[in-house]
Amino acid sequence: MSTKNTQIHLVKRPQGEPDASCFALVEQTLGEPGPGQVLVRNRFLSLDPYMRGRMDDAKSYSQPQPLNEVMIGATAGEILASNHPDFKPGDSFAAKFGLGWQTHAIVDAKQILKVDASQVPLSYYVGLLGMPGATAWYGSMKILEPAAGQTLVVTAATGAVGGVVGQLAKAAGARVVGIAGGTAKCDYAVKELGFDACVDYKAAGWKEALEAATPAGIDRVFENVGGEIFDTLLSRMKPFGRVAVCGLISGYNGVSMPLNNFRSVLVNKLRIQGFIISDHLELWPQAHRELAEMVVAGKLKYRETVADGLENAPKAFMGMLKGANFGKQIVKL
Amino acid sequence: MSTKNTQIHLVKRPQGEPDASCFALVEQTLGEPGPGQVLVRNRFLSLDPYMRGRMDDAKSYSQPQPLNEVMIGATAGEILASNHPDFKPGDSFAAKFGLGWQTHAIVDAKQILKVDASQVPLSYYVGLLGMPGATAWYGSMKILEPAAGQTLVVTAATGAVGGVVGQLAKAAGARVVGIAGGTAKCDYAVKELGFDACVDYKAAGWKEALEAATPAGIDRVFENVGGEIFDTLLSRMKPFGRVAVCGLISGYNGVSMPLNNFRSVLVNKLRIQGFIISDHLELWPQAHRELAEMVVAGKLKYRETVADGLENAPKAFMGMLKGANFGKQIVKL
Repeated sequence: MSTKNTQIHLVKRPQGEPDASCFALVEQTLGEPGPGQVLVRNRFLSLDPYMRGRMDDAKSYSQPQPLNEVMIGATAGEILASNHPDFKPGDSFAAKFGLGWQTHAIVDAKQILKVDASQVPLSYYVGLLGMPGATAWYGSMKILEPAAGQTLVVTAATGAVGGVVGQLAKAAGARVVGIAGGTAKCDYAVKELGFDACVDYKAAGWKEALEAATPAGIDRVFENVGGEIFDTLLSRMKPFGRVAVCGLISGYNGVSMPLNNFRSVLVNKLRIQGFIISDHLELWPQAHRELAEMVVAGKLKYRETVADGLENAPKAFMGMLKGANFGKQIVKL
Repeated sequence: MSTKNTQIHLVKRPQGEPDASCFALVEQTLGEPGPGQVLVRNRFLSLDPYMRGRMDDAKSYSQPQPLNEVMIGATAGEILASNHPDFKPGDSFAAKFGLGWQTHAIVDAKQILKVDASQVPLSYYVGLLGMPGATAWYGSMKILEPAAGQTLVVTAATGAVGGVVGQLAKAAGARVVGIAGGTAKCDYAVKELGFDACVDYKAAGWKEALEAATPAGIDRVFENVGGEIFDTLLSRMKPFGRVAVCGLISGYNGVSMPLNNFRSVLVNKLRIQGFIISDHLELWPQAHRELAEMVVAGKLKYRETVADGLENAPKAFMGMLKGANFGKQIVKL
């Protein structure tokens, strides 16, 4: 038996924004899984901002994405054939560190986890119950620790991470202000996710809107964006404020983003903590258990933007870097 | 009995660098101390970078220095007359928050502390055993926690704070690299204070010298300066590095100091902590006890630059902001 596999490779490192010429669709034929291996069908692929960082050949979180190899990315799907006793055909799986932008794969069984797709949709395992959910949970519960009486601001507020951060902070009793691009996202943050306010950074007068939404200043920032927005937030921090730096998407395409308000760190005795969730794997089970319980109980809303088909992954990815997605960007394979 | 007191007032808020016209010498006559009060003669006045921040009428650590009042500043001296049982004439005292730029004062006894000037010079109580020493100790022992195998960089390395920070880090087993202005200061840091290296930021090629002095990167930064030097240090941080932000003297005169390498916070999962030592008064006794023990045991070197006479305080202060002092800047009154 042989299986046709379709992959997307990185074939050129982008200068600034990536474009279609950075990617190529490649077909290959897979053989049989070896001892201890499984053949899987990826059904959902996660697209995440960190991928842009990996596309540069520079010191970053981790190793650069190699050229002419399948793009990295988290996936979830089903087992087609198994040579490992823990898996049988039809089982649902998730791959923490992903099997990449491809429809199929043969992998060692230890690279994947069996998951229960009866209570939550399988796609959630590449988002809320995957890396983005763990990221939101860790930054909120272990770094920011929001509490009643505090004001927390989260950027990219309706994204895979930001939406969860804001809801966790609301559950902790904090006043939550999101920052997002466009009225549709801001309406969603307030009306659906329950944020106290949301500032549309694409609208004129957004700085004044931020001031109005944070009249007492800001105690906690969950930062996904960087650049001018972050600089503005720094200027409104209260004494002993904290900032969790989860992403700096505004700089991922090589744009310089000088900070002018760093002095606030001294004046306000701020604590700024950068983090990458892969350093804290031991907490993922706790994070995912708590998030799954909230979802099942109807206490946590989660939204996805679904691109259809592997061939549309590059376009969806490029759009996500500009904020075109609304909620977690995934690809249905 | 009446006592002539000489003060220096702030009479104009500086735009950028302060100059002589910002200050005025004022004479007044003091009466008798009231119940519970003491009449003191200030013998040593501390000049510190934080004072520049207070001269602006802007949100800063604390309240702005009022115009046409005596400049704030820590002092140590002796009791001339006392209406409080804890003090008698001739006793040495230190004033944690200072009695300001003046020769004499009448104050409530609770505003001063009796100190022992038999083992260490009285002047140390406005520096090593005052706010600067507590600052160095807190930032080192409670924020940075340097350890063997790590490289710590301290800016303003021969200043009142920096010199102590580097010696504490050496005692903890870390590799210590100072940054200071001029070969005399750098020689002192290495030959007298025992630093492993010191980079002269006024010399051409200082960035290359920093690279050579930190071949494995930087684990810990004690930041007193800010600006381009700090930006460069950020670019050399190692994963899980920490930064204690104690001062940003390069920006005190209103100079903008954009940071371009903030991305290192994310990539290297840095923790940046701003702090002001007055938030941690409860630890001063421990800090001062440990520092005093080191000094008495000959394990901690401490250098002062002494300006002579209150009338020379403004000039010494303006020089200090440009790094003209060498060690702790004080004024002998």
